[in-house]
Amino acid sequence: MKALEEKIREEAVVLSPSVIKVDSFLNHSVDPSFMKDIGEAFYTKFKNEPVTKIITLESSGIAPAVMTGLFFDVPVVFLRKQKSLTLNDQLFTADVYSYTKETTNSISISKEYLSENDHVLIIDDLLANGQALKGMIDIVRESGAGLAGCGIVIEKGFQNGGSDLRKSNIRIESLAIISEMTEETITFSEREED
Amino acid sequence: MKALEEKIREEAVVLSPSVIKVDSFLNHSVDPSFMKDIGEAFYTKFKNEPVTKIITLESSGIAPAVMTGLFFDVPVVFLRKQKSLTLNDQLFTADVYSYTKETTNSISISKEYLSENDHVLIIDDLLANGQALKGMIDIVRESGAGLAGCGIVIEKGFQNGGSDLRKSNIRIESLAIISEMTEETITFSEREED
Repeated sequence: MKALEEKIREEAVVLSPSVIKVDSFLNHSVDPSFMKDIGEAFYTKFKNEPVTKIITLESSGIAPAVMTGLFFDVPVVFLRKQKSLTLNDQLFTADVYSYTKETTNSISISKEYLSENDHVLIIDDLLANGQALKGMIDIVRESGAGLAGCGIVIEKGFQNGGSDLRKSNIRIESLAIISEMTEETITFSEREED
Repeated sequence: MKALEEKIREEAVVLSPSVIKVDSFLNHSVDPSFMKDIGEAFYTKFKNEPVTKIITLESSGIAPAVMTGLFFDVPVVFLRKQKSLTLNDQLFTADVYSYTKETTNSISISKEYLSENDHVLIIDDLLANGQALKGMIDIVRESGAGLAGCGIVIEKGFQNGGSDLRKSNIRIESLAIISEMTEETITFSEREED
């Protein structure tokens, strides 16, 4: 998505070779109309899938997920992150390790909102090592629901989450894939014209 | 908002005389098109204000805030909740006590995204004791920005947050005000026709 790449080039702050800060349009401040364009871009990529539900992870996934849900006209469920979770048979849960924060969180969704009758699109803001995404995919599998794929706003292509998941035949559609970044330059993987 | 009151009557679960669970459309699963109607309702109430920015609190405030932002065409900033925050001169912060969780969280916004040139609309999902809202109002005051008011999806009118804030001349617009609730019945305060 060309407009997204431009926004990243103009506004993202590269804090280290692997850490990028996109607070100005994704992780802290959000431009709703740009977010709607992102929702439409995901819709265009996945519209041939019989999506019945979108799931995402709080908090930065919510804005792009809800906008995508507007185009699909399906419910959006945001998974909760908690330090630890006592076993609860009303929830599907997974543990997610964060390399940046060096902590493990439980993510969960109520069984009321995910079942084998669903065909799920996962939306998330960032893909790096893919830990959060793998947790969400495990939850979809556990529920028996079908998986349309994963729509990612920004993928750090030089980390292994995306390639790992694609190898296991998960459909990953990232609107921008950063192949390399330094304080001066951000390089994107080539993309289909959009 | 009549459609909201109906949704609350049909789907909300009253867990105790003061605790209501609205996971099916606000706090866990979200209907994007209904959320857009909520955004439009807030826009209708505040459209005469020169709003330049919307702020909300992660996570459940994000969906209604972003949809409201779509109508105003202004940025939406979601404040972060953290257990505690080391002093940071790049942030405006406030402490918020949660009566339900019996914990104090720091909420914060980067000074990059709020200034005296802003005229702020605060959007939040629920208003009970008003602790979170008071924290957000303190932050707006500290930044020197103007305050258009607060748009609340569901207010528990039998708790004192809303009346306290209205007494201090803060404009609070709640789309549904619950005056009383039991497991069997939810009663709303009278509202203007919408």
